[in-house]
Order: sequence, then C-alpha cells, then structure tokens
Amino acid sequence: MQNNKLLSVSIAREKMLQAISPLSSEKCSIFAAHNRIVAEDLFALISHPAEAVSSMDGYAARLSDIVNIPTCLPEVGTSRAGYAYKKPLLAGQLVRIFTGAVIPQGCDTVILQEDTQNVLGKIQINELPKLGQFIRYPGLDFSAGQKIVSKNSILTARSCALIALAGLSELPVIRKPKIGILTSGDELVAPGQIPKSGQLINSNNILLSSLIKASGGEPIDLGILADKSGALIETLKNSPNLDLVVTTGGASVGDHDFITNDIKNNPNAALSFWKIAMRPGKPLLFGKYENTPVLGLPGNPVSAGVCAVLFLAPVIKKFLRLNPSLSYSKALITEDLSKNDRREEYLRAKLVTDDEGIRHVTPAIRQDSSMLATLNEADCLILRPAFAPKIKKSSTVSILNFPNLF
Amino acid sequence: MQNNKLLSVSIAREKMLQAISPLSSEKCSIFAAHNRIVAEDLFALISHPAEAVSSMDGYAARLSDIVNIPTCLPEVGTSRAGYAYKKPLLAGQLVRIFTGAVIPQGCDTVILQEDTQNVLGKIQINELPKLGQFIRYPGLDFSAGQKIVSKNSILTARSCALIALAGLSELPVIRKPKIGILTSGDELVAPGQIPKSGQLINSNNILLSSLIKASGGEPIDLGILADKSGALIETLKNSPNLDLVVTTGGASVGDHDFITNDIKNNPNAALSFWKIAMRPGKPLLFGKYENTPVLGLPGNPVSAGVCAVLFLAPVIKKFLRLNPSLSYSKALITEDLSKNDRREEYLRAKLVTDDEGIRHVTPAIRQDSSMLATLNEADCLILRPAFAPKIKKSSTVSILNFPNLF
Repeated sequence: MQNNKLLSVSIAREKMLQAISPLSSEKCSIFAAHNRIVAEDLFALISHPAEAVSSMDGYAARLSDIVNIPTCLPEVGTSRAGYAYKKPLLAGQLVRIFTGAVIPQGCDTVILQEDTQNVLGKIQINELPKLGQFIRYPGLDFSAGQKIVSKNSILTARSCALIALAGLSELPVIRKPKIGILTSGDELVAPGQIPKSGQLINSNNILLSSLIKASGGEPIDLGILADKSGALIETLKNSPNLDLVVTTGGASVGDHDFITNDIKNNPNAALSFWKIAMRPGKPLLFGKYENTPVLGLPGNPVSAGVCAVLFLAPVIKKFLRLNPSLSYSKALITEDLSKNDRREEYLRAKLVTDDEGIRHVTPAIRQDSSMLATLNEADCLILRPAFAPKIKKSSTVSILNFPNLF
Repeated sequence: MQNNKLLSVSIAREKMLQAISPLSSEKCSIFAAHNRIVAEDLFALISHPAEAVSSMDGYAARLSDIVNIPTCLPEVGTSRAGYAYKKPLLAGQLVRIFTGAVIPQGCDTVILQEDTQNVLGKIQINELPKLGQFIRYPGLDFSAGQKIVSKNSILTARSCALIALAGLSELPVIRKPKIGILTSGDELVAPGQIPKSGQLINSNNILLSSLIKASGGEPIDLGILADKSGALIETLKNSPNLDLVVTTGGASVGDHDFITNDIKNNPNAALSFWKIAMRPGKPLLFGKYENTPVLGLPGNPVSAGVCAVLFLAPVIKKFLRLNPSLSYSKALITEDLSKNDRREEYLRAKLVTDDEGIRHVTPAIRQDSSMLATLNEADCLILRPAFAPKIKKSSTVSILNFPNLF
C-alpha cells in the first residue's frame, strides 16, 4: 500500500496544468469562427455606419426649410439602401429616403413618412422635425480602429456578426487541441459488436470524444490498446503531432495494468504523478512521452467520466487560453452524510430548486464506479473533502457542475 | 399607420409555433449522436455488468473456505478482464482476479490484494472477507430491457456512453431542421468585400447561421435577395425541401420592401402575420410559401438578433421536440425606467451578481437597433411589457437570457 503517496486533487490538477502550454493561433474565416476562441484583440477596419444613414422611411430635408407647419416641399429624388441620391440637396428641396439609405449632402433631418402627405404633387410636412432626427451618424455603432472583441473570448453568433460588420473576413483563433484517445483493456469491444462472456462494450471512447468536441478540442481515436507491456509507447510513437493523449484503464495496481509502467520505464517518457486521493478515480496518471502530455484516466466508466470533468476538461481550457477553474456552487444536502476518509469524494447527485430558489441536493443511493446510468441521471457531483466530518441533513455542501453537454 | 394591427409578441409566437410541426426521426450512429435529440425511449439490449465481475484486484474465493484468519489457500488460476478462469472453483481453491474480470463459478467473495501475502507458494488471507464483497452482480448498473434514456432528451457525452454500453450502436434521433437563410437588401455585400458608399457588409447571415447551428439546425445559405418584386418567390421555388426559410430585411413599410408583398400576393403563399408590437423588431413577418414556413426578420442587425432569439430559436426547438419556452428570470434594475408605450421592449443590458448572489441589471445607454456592438456586449435583455408604468431604481424586472453561444 502506498496510500501515503496519494496526491490531493487540487495539487494534482495544479501540477498537470503547469505542464500544459496554451496553443498557438491560426487564421480562420469569419464563416467558420463561431464557437472558436479569438487569439487577439480585434479592431474594426471600418466604421458602422460608415456614412450618415436614415433610421426610418421618410424624407430627408434641411431643417431651415421647415419653419412653419404645414410646409410643402418638392421631392427631387430618392435615396434608398444601396442607391444613394448623389447630388447635394439644395435649399427648399426634399429627398424621399428609406431605412439604411445614405443621407444626401446638405440634409440635417429626416421626416417620418407618416408625418407627411402628398398635396398637389408636393410633400406636405405636418410635424415640426428636430435637428438630426432619425439620422444615424458615422460611427454610431463603432468607429474604425475601435476594439470590438477582446482576445481569448469565445466567439458567439453576436460577436461573429459584429466582426463581419466591422470588415474582418479572417481572424486569428486559437488552434484546436488535437487529443488522441486510447482506451485500454483486452475485454473491450467496439460498439456494434456483440460482447462475448467477459467482454465489455467500449463506452469511454464515446464519452471522451464527445466531451473533447464539446470543449473545443479535436478528438482522434487511437483505438483500443492491448493489455501488454510496450503497447502504449508503440502507439504514441506512431501518433505524432498530438497535443495530448488521454488513456482509460491500465493504470491501476494490477499485474495487467501496463500504462503506468510503460511511462515509468521508457527513457523518452516521464511520470509526473500517479494515484490521486479521490473517489472515484484513484488510479489517475499524468506524465509525458517525448513532448506529448499523457493523461491516464481510470477504466471504469464513471471514474473515467468524473476524472474527465476534473482533469481533461480543464486541460482543454488551458490549451484554449480559457480559465481552467472548475464550476463549483453550493446546495443543501437532503440527508445525513457520514465522515469521509483521506480520499476526496465526488458523489453523483440529483439537484432540485424549490419555489424560493433554494437548491437541494440528494446523493444517489449506490455510488459504485461501474454504474454509468447513475452518472447519466446525475445533475451534479457533491464534493466531500478529504477527512470531512459527518454532516447533518440541511447542511450546505459544495457541488461540482458538469460541463456543457457532458 | 396600422398600429392597431400590431400583434403582441406572445400571440405572434403562439401563432407561429402552432404552424410548426415537430420533425420526423432518422437513424444515427452512436458515434454521431452527441448533441442530437433522441426520438424514442431507449432500452438496454444487454445488462451491465452482463456477468458477475470483480470490482477490485485480488483473489476470488469461497467464503466457506475462510473460517479462520489467517488462512492459506492455493492459487489455481487467473481471471482477468477479457480472459476469464473458465472452470468452476473447487472447495479450498483461490483464483487470482483483476478489476472487471468475471467471477469464476463457485466464488462468492473477493479478497483485496492488499489483505493477502504469498507464504510458501500459497496465498495467505489476513482479513476475514464478507459474502459478496467486491463483486458486481449482473445488472448492477442496468438490466437488459431497462429504459436507459428518455425520448426527446438531448444526448450528452454521458448518455451516449450509456447507450453504447447498453449495446445500441444506432438509434433514432430527430432530423435536423434544414433552414434556408435569405438576407435581403441591395446595399449588402458579403464579408471579404470592401463596401462602397451606401453599401453594408452582410452580418445577418453569419448571426443566423451560427444561431441555427448552435440550436441544432442545419443552416443553408440562399444568398442575398435582390430588392425587387418576385425575387423572394423565385428563390423559394428553387429551394425545395427546406423546413423553414428565414429572411432578414425587406419587410418594413418602405416602397422597396418586397418580402411582405411577395408573400401577400402570391397564390401559393399565405401571410399569417406581419408587424409585431415590439421594439426592436416591429416589421416581423410569418407566413408560408406552399408548405414551407417563412419567418421574416427585420434587417437591422440588432432587430434581427433579438427577433431570432424570440422567434427563430423557439421554432427550432419546436422542430426538435424541445420545449420552445424562452428563458426568463428576474433581476433588480439599477436605474429608473420611464413608462413604456404599446410596444413590448427588449433593452440590451449588463448583468452583475453581487456578493450576496443578488443580480443587478443595467440597460445600455443607447438602444438604437443598428448598434450591434451593444448587443454583443449585453448579458441579457430587459423585458419592458407593453404599457409598463415607470419604475424606480431597484425594482424587479424580467430579463430574457440569451441562448447558448448566441
């Protein structure tokens, strides 16, 4: 037993994140930028609007021509979006104008269509306009050179539209981390195959690739790793240019868990840590092979999932220059909890918000780490710190929220 | 003026949603199912575990052989994941066993590796085991025939893994709605082009396609629609098999807004409603051409965005059999608000949560519907109901939360 060597979750995460470098940037078309992370502050290339434009349908005029109400003026042309009235407006003239159209030179007000009527071929103005009304002056939204989007932010639908409007058709985004997935275990068969006695369908690959995609990474399936010495190194050798390799299984203390030894014993590999004081998920490993970080998750579906939330998702955030902190909040526990041992525990739990907005959390009755249905039904995980004393029903506990689409 | 004909937002949304039918289902590989909506309840094809397996590394034994401590027993074989010990265990025998391995017939307990030692070639057991300890019995997680995922739920990483583990490699999901995007306006140029005087870069297409993708739909760019009578119908004729066409611009009261008239006047089209009592976004249109619903959004970037949140996102949810309700919550306003007119108003606003968890919302100073930067910076929209009275700073207001990645 090496329980005295178990690392705490927070120290392990810190060690791991220190070994991860944010990725470089690459050029991206504005049409493909949604949900990417912008790598630099972006500045408008053009102003919006670029010229004074009308915000309504009506008539562009000179305020000095409209002293009394009603006033009749002749319509000398039309300015509509895409087709400006190119001449300057002379005294005593009106131009028909539509929303978004350029204000002709000399105009300083727009009269609403509904405040006018046609009288003997002229336009009669029935309401006294104000100077500059219904005119959008250049740069009302933003001016050329103005910062429009801050670096390291996620590009939403709104920000992509803003970037396009500001004249950028290409922009720098953080490269997506390429993450190899290696599931280990001679008992595993791929979905679609019928497992024989002693075999198990591989679900970890799907769990991890889905989480990686939802987190902004690019999953690369490296297949199922045989339970034999050297198999990991052989696969890593043949999988260059990955930013991270994540494995599941094979890192326990059993004679047939080869991943830890492969990393430990290879001259081109280095083990950073192995075994964490947590439940589920003790046999968690972090190290590297040449320059590729290797994150070894436990093989049990629930342990793999919980450790992916605690370790893999933050690594992807660090790659993408996002804040890798986990999302904890508070809730009231609906039952007594016994004291905890030295292993930090993450309990699958259901969360209910009552009519007063207070949140109540109930742990699943069984917490066996093979029970994936319980993880699927959980709304969050209750965090029980190492050596936490027993607590009574209605005490406040910390809960860990799941990443989006996890 | 036809202000008396303005429809309220809620009635307009209801009318629109009534005209939208949820889509049919299609088969999907489990490898592509993440973030899709499952169309039917799913039931496990196999149990998990399918057989009794060990949850630890150690020795499988018969409890009746271990009456006193220590007891020494001979190791007669190994059961490891993927490679079971196939013979039944006889009285007085032990089998080495690893996590996930099948429990040999006759065994009823597993002794932890760390509770044993090798003594003269036999395994000495130092702790008295309990019946059934460290054994996962068949169906502990779920049994064949058990419901594992409910229909109409979004498939997360966890649920995809669970479905795979339960033996399903293909499953029914709701078809993605194919949504055509038509942006109208002769002043528009595509991103990448340099706008001349009077021209504007088309940002609405990017806004809408990003929102459609993030909402689970498939955007199809139908290009920029010319400002001329018949252009809309011509495009619709040439765009079959769409579930919805969304347009921007061209639905105002100006002489050059042809979309409304195209829908109104074509014998194969029908106008359901046009003009909503809201700000921004009055010129909103809904109708159909043949069997394709047409949603006409305003052309201003902010109006288009706000109306997309209020109308387009719920339509996509209805297609996908998700709840189309908008996500409203409450916050305290940080300044006085004047009374509102007959148009329901949506104010771009910043949201701050204080140390006590109370949320404070501040509207942007300028709310002009061309100001996309303000929409991009907003955290939410404040809803001002029609004819809302003036309210004081610190009053509670309703806020509309944005969809994910909007």
